[in-house]
Amino acid sequence: MRIFLLPPSYEGEQIVQIAGKEYHYLINVLRLKEGMKLTGRDGQGIYYTLTVSSIGPSKVLLTAEVQREGARETIDVFSAFRGPFPSVHLYQCVGKGKKLEQIIRQCTELGIASITPVMSRYTLSDVTKNWNVKSQRYRKVAEQAIQQSASPVMTQIEEPVRIQDIACRVADLSRLFVLHQSLESSRTTIFSHTRDLIEKDPTSPISLLVGPEGGFSDEEVSALIDSGARGVLLQTNILRTETAAVTASAIIIQFAIDMLSHT
Amino acid sequence: MRIFLLPPSYEGEQIVQIAGKEYHYLINVLRLKEGMKLTGRDGQGIYYTLTVSSIGPSKVLLTAEVQREGARETIDVFSAFRGPFPSVHLYQCVGKGKKLEQIIRQCTELGIASITPVMSRYTLSDVTKNWNVKSQRYRKVAEQAIQQSASPVMTQIEEPVRIQDIACRVADLSRLFVLHQSLESSRTTIFSHTRDLIEKDPTSPISLLVGPEGGFSDEEVSALIDSGARGVLLQTNILRTETAAVTASAIIIQFAIDMLSHT
Repeated sequence: MRIFLLPPSYEGEQIVQIAGKEYHYLINVLRLKEGMKLTGRDGQGIYYTLTVSSIGPSKVLLTAEVQREGARETIDVFSAFRGPFPSVHLYQCVGKGKKLEQIIRQCTELGIASITPVMSRYTLSDVTKNWNVKSQRYRKVAEQAIQQSASPVMTQIEEPVRIQDIACRVADLSRLFVLHQSLESSRTTIFSHTRDLIEKDPTSPISLLVGPEGGFSDEEVSALIDSGARGVLLQTNILRTETAAVTASAIIIQFAIDMLSHT
Repeated sequence: MRIFLLPPSYEGEQIVQIAGKEYHYLINVLRLKEGMKLTGRDGQGIYYTLTVSSIGPSKVLLTAEVQREGARETIDVFSAFRGPFPSVHLYQCVGKGKKLEQIIRQCTELGIASITPVMSRYTLSDVTKNWNVKSQRYRKVAEQAIQQSASPVMTQIEEPVRIQDIACRVADLSRLFVLHQSLESSRTTIFSHTRDLIEKDPTSPISLLVGPEGGFSDEEVSALIDSGARGVLLQTNILRTETAAVTASAIIIQFAIDMLSHT
């Protein structure tokens, strides 16, 4: 289901009036009609069943009723996939500027479990600088994406780590993919390795490490592979880091879901 | 291979001096060393074999030699996947603002054959307005992405079409995926349908239609399905149109490449 964010001024009233951009969204984009129901959430995190009671030329009136636990799945006009999602954690070496925000937004929509910024030898910016400010922004981006996409996965934005500390963070290193855009015959493809891991254990977490624009250093990759991580390959062009992150995340998550839904 | 764009001032000289941002890219990002070779291209589209002849603290000298046809694949220090890529064509209903640029950039990196903007009932902006200006920008974005990603696929940006004209543009409608984010049992998943199409015919084009933010109208989907197109489903959250486009394109292309490389 899609969750409608109630205006900040909303304080539990029975009738909510919506105008402006939100009106446009509800009427022209979602194309709600009178009598239709959807789920809303207020600033306190309380969920409401909203019923469209009347639609005018520039405003719409919704009737709000606090939702019982568990009621949400049955009332919404917008069906959505409810899982199960595999538990996939992204370790993302930090690129420049707005790239991390785009990665957070897109991977959250796709149902990634967590995103951890990683500092490696060739990362181009220091993500730990002003982390308190940045992390608030990143968590906001993730929260908005969870709401817009109606994701049942509460994507977490974790504190940054150094690449050499990943081995201590990932419980089972054989379930860590190191995405490496180079052609060595020893590397497996992302499909075959996802298939192996899901067949072996469909519920344990899978982790994915994506390099920065300038790639990993040879030492970084060797250290991880020696510790038990698996180098995996996308058979494709040289991708920018944000395209690599969303592509690899999408393939692992979607391929796992496809496998899980057939078992 | 990665192709280095020579400065606009370059006119075929044997020695090229590179400073500033491009210096940083070659030395700190690509980490070229003296004696290494890479492929360059000038404004006329002529390809050169570039050899790093000396590296200073702020500039690098490259020796340039016009490349023979077919030489490119053997000389580069940056290996890249050379295909075969399946022929996948994206029909993209147009979202707001910069979304189409992001879709063009990411799908071009992934090796999509062509991108055609589509106008449908609920598209939010008129892409045909100032198309002459917009198309130049879009083609530039695709060209840059081809170069950066070293894609062997020359992604085309086509003229916009109306959704009702797609049936006339796609030669074999049974190879058109209509991505529809809704749960009806009659729809197949993107993996199983990709597998079916590639097994049936690995080389004929596959087309993918992605809806706008507000979705397709029921009539639009029915008309296409009635004409022979296949509704396919991503079992996931409600994706924004740009995330849906890159995710579906990546899965079709990568799954097809994975299949083709095992046959």
